[in-house]
Amino acid sequence: MVNNTIAAISTSLSASGIGIIRISGEDAIIIADKLFVSKKKKMLIEQKTHTIHYGNIINPESNEIIDEVLVSVMKEPNTYTKENIIEINCHGGVIVMQKILHLVLSNGARLAEPGEFTKRAFLNGRMDLSSAEAVIDIINAKTELSLESSVNQLKGNIYREIKNIRSKLIELIAHIEASIDYPEYDYEELGEDMVLNNLDGIKEKVSKLLNSADDGKIIREGIKTVIVGKPNVGKSSLMNALLNEDRAIVTDVAGTTRDVLEEYMNIKGIPLRIIDTAGIRETEDIVEKIGVNKSEELVQEADLVIMMLDASSDLTEEDRYIFNLIKNKKTIVLLNKIDLPVRITEEFVNEEVKNTKVISTSLKDNKGLDDIEKAIKDMFLIGDINFNDNLYITNIRHKVSLENAIDSLNSVKESIEMGMPEDCWSIDLKNSYDYLGEITGDSVSDDIIHQIFSQFCLGK
Amino acid sequence: MVNNTIAAISTSLSASGIGIIRISGEDAIIIADKLFVSKKKKMLIEQKTHTIHYGNIINPESNEIIDEVLVSVMKEPNTYTKENIIEINCHGGVIVMQKILHLVLSNGARLAEPGEFTKRAFLNGRMDLSSAEAVIDIINAKTELSLESSVNQLKGNIYREIKNIRSKLIELIAHIEASIDYPEYDYEELGEDMVLNNLDGIKEKVSKLLNSADDGKIIREGIKTVIVGKPNVGKSSLMNALLNEDRAIVTDVAGTTRDVLEEYMNIKGIPLRIIDTAGIRETEDIVEKIGVNKSEELVQEADLVIMMLDASSDLTEEDRYIFNLIKNKKTIVLLNKIDLPVRITEEFVNEEVKNTKVISTSLKDNKGLDDIEKAIKDMFLIGDINFNDNLYITNIRHKVSLENAIDSLNSVKESIEMGMPEDCWSIDLKNSYDYLGEITGDSVSDDIIHQIFSQFCLGK
Repeated sequence: MVNNTIAAISTSLSASGIGIIRISGEDAIIIADKLFVSKKKKMLIEQKTHTIHYGNIINPESNEIIDEVLVSVMKEPNTYTKENIIEINCHGGVIVMQKILHLVLSNGARLAEPGEFTKRAFLNGRMDLSSAEAVIDIINAKTELSLESSVNQLKGNIYREIKNIRSKLIELIAHIEASIDYPEYDYEELGEDMVLNNLDGIKEKVSKLLNSADDGKIIREGIKTVIVGKPNVGKSSLMNALLNEDRAIVTDVAGTTRDVLEEYMNIKGIPLRIIDTAGIRETEDIVEKIGVNKSEELVQEADLVIMMLDASSDLTEEDRYIFNLIKNKKTIVLLNKIDLPVRITEEFVNEEVKNTKVISTSLKDNKGLDDIEKAIKDMFLIGDINFNDNLYITNIRHKVSLENAIDSLNSVKESIEMGMPEDCWSIDLKNSYDYLGEITGDSVSDDIIHQIFSQFCLGK
Repeated sequence: MVNNTIAAISTSLSASGIGIIRISGEDAIIIADKLFVSKKKKMLIEQKTHTIHYGNIINPESNEIIDEVLVSVMKEPNTYTKENIIEINCHGGVIVMQKILHLVLSNGARLAEPGEFTKRAFLNGRMDLSSAEAVIDIINAKTELSLESSVNQLKGNIYREIKNIRSKLIELIAHIEASIDYPEYDYEELGEDMVLNNLDGIKEKVSKLLNSADDGKIIREGIKTVIVGKPNVGKSSLMNALLNEDRAIVTDVAGTTRDVLEEYMNIKGIPLRIIDTAGIRETEDIVEKIGVNKSEELVQEADLVIMMLDASSDLTEEDRYIFNLIKNKKTIVLLNKIDLPVRITEEFVNEEVKNTKVISTSLKDNKGLDDIEKAIKDMFLIGDINFNDNLYITNIRHKVSLENAIDSLNSVKESIEMGMPEDCWSIDLKNSYDYLGEITGDSVSDDIIHQIFSQFCLGK
């Protein structure tokens, strides 16, 4: 490789206390020595691994001081990437971080691709692919459940379970192949029953993992909850009340909410991803129109719809239009503004949509919030989650690989039942083995690896 | 002090590669040892200063692993705060950073106030007040000039100059007081001329610093440039063209720009702070109305106004209203849309506002941008700035102290000229000495110190 030393800003590019520029690769320490002048005039290359040094980053051409920094030296192989790593801990200003990165790049490093540090950790054998994928899940975790599940994945709980299943598969494959190659030996023992028996045991383990993916999706993404209603029924107020903060701008001008707002929260332990939408109505305003189409789309994708009505005024065409939109969705209907004289009752709503949970609220007076939380809890009751005992598949890529592995196992079964020869069985068993290997990265194409790490943030 | 160990998240609270939780104080290492389990089962308290350790943060109550981390141990006194410092380098996820901070706080630290780490660096004598103030300026620097100036301030260039002036003042004061206390000694030498002479030398140094504050303001904040014009003349397009990116949403609906957008850029070395405003027009829309009032306010505060006209249509009442708004301001008038048949010429504009630079542009065709940049350069020509030779005052607090110091020096001069007794001179000289000491923090009240550090970000 011509230039195998990479660098990036690893903290976020916004003003904060500390910023970190990370360098990894053979030349990391040599490059840092060109830019760093230690207070004690020490060379970094001569320092012990895992030590911290105080000094200035200096432009070697102009001798201009860029910033006062701490530099961490970590020498291969006991580092995140198993390569030499330098971390420059500077002031967390946008310009200063960019200037230091620029100097590092012009002194021999190249800009790291997104996720390239973790990709190297994987390629250099420090972690399996499912653990590497957990890194970005930890960073993006929006709920405590999701963090806990990702940390377990980082620690290799999925890796170990897949490895265990694969070892059982490879045993079975070896057994079948031995009986094909050396038919004179214990052919009798390879009875169909024995293979089918083993197969069922393996399939059960894969199915158990696959079944965890539904809870896994909720753990990872939360229940996608969309709040809809015509303008000015109190959608933003509901979101604020649930979140207990002023995230959405609330005014009494119809059509204020133009952008879709999204927040993560926990309701009685259940992670919710709540989306507040622009008021759904016919509008001539182009900007607002974009927002309105977007909300109709969001309703279709929602796990849960909260529809809001103004209980103090009659049902309108707009309300009926929304009723039409939400049929076939899991829905809670809120009759808001019951502090005012009520003109819509639960019966009115049930004439429009059957069997829907209806809750009366006055967000102005903080009435009805508990009922909403209870209703959500009742609709999505998931068992008490205990990560010490159970594995949860939270990654869609893993889910697809598990599905493929099961399909292959089913094919083996079919082959046996149809009386096909043994070498057919073994092909499907090997496929299943490879599909499972995609999860841990033992059998996976460069394209997939590239695609996985391209979803990472810069500097990780 | 009951609890003098503080902690905070020092990176920004958004998803990124690395997050840092910083702890400072006597118990910092003891607290970290409660939560950190090193891979090699080492205790942090037994480790050398400035070393890095790999392991897990674990909730000591539940034994749950929170994250895989690197922990930096820095022992007093050679640290940022001169106290024990621990930095926990974790995955840069919002939930994970918050969880670790929470654990640190529930195990004996208290949440740091904004700027409290740097405040301790100042109070513990690691840096003077002007250097401490430079820390937040480095973080907030929006231009390279501003960064360079702040780094020089961090390195103590203002501190040294103020110290130098103050030592001359104290010499003079000592001299006067000696002649009051021991009139029998060299009274002759204290001649008014000698005092006036010294005074002039000191005043010149203070004035030179004070005069640098105008350039200093531009260095720090950029030239505050406001773009105005009735709706749909191309204001957002101009901003995008100058910035060369799609920061502002451009549509052809009048009134799209509702929020004030602000960007920092360099035009031929001059830092510009460009503000794009909502279209100024009469409007019934409440949200838009707020935006419009805001733009009128911004025009009043601007260093430079860029007024845009649609050259392809006649002048309207709105244009005339804006002309009225901008008189007495430094202004560049753009005749935009000259790709269309032109109905407004430079002469028309000059009838409305005298002696104004008028530039014809077609932003659609990228025409006229160079002329705009040249015009700005001509209007705000500041000399080539060389920080090695010159000091620039960029802090308004320092400017006020310098003004007060000069006022006091002028009072001394008046006292002498009015023939007042020597002890009057010395009171004003001492005032001047104290005003200058406010800049370095040698003479400054707790209130001011509190106020300075409260403007810092959390975790610094």
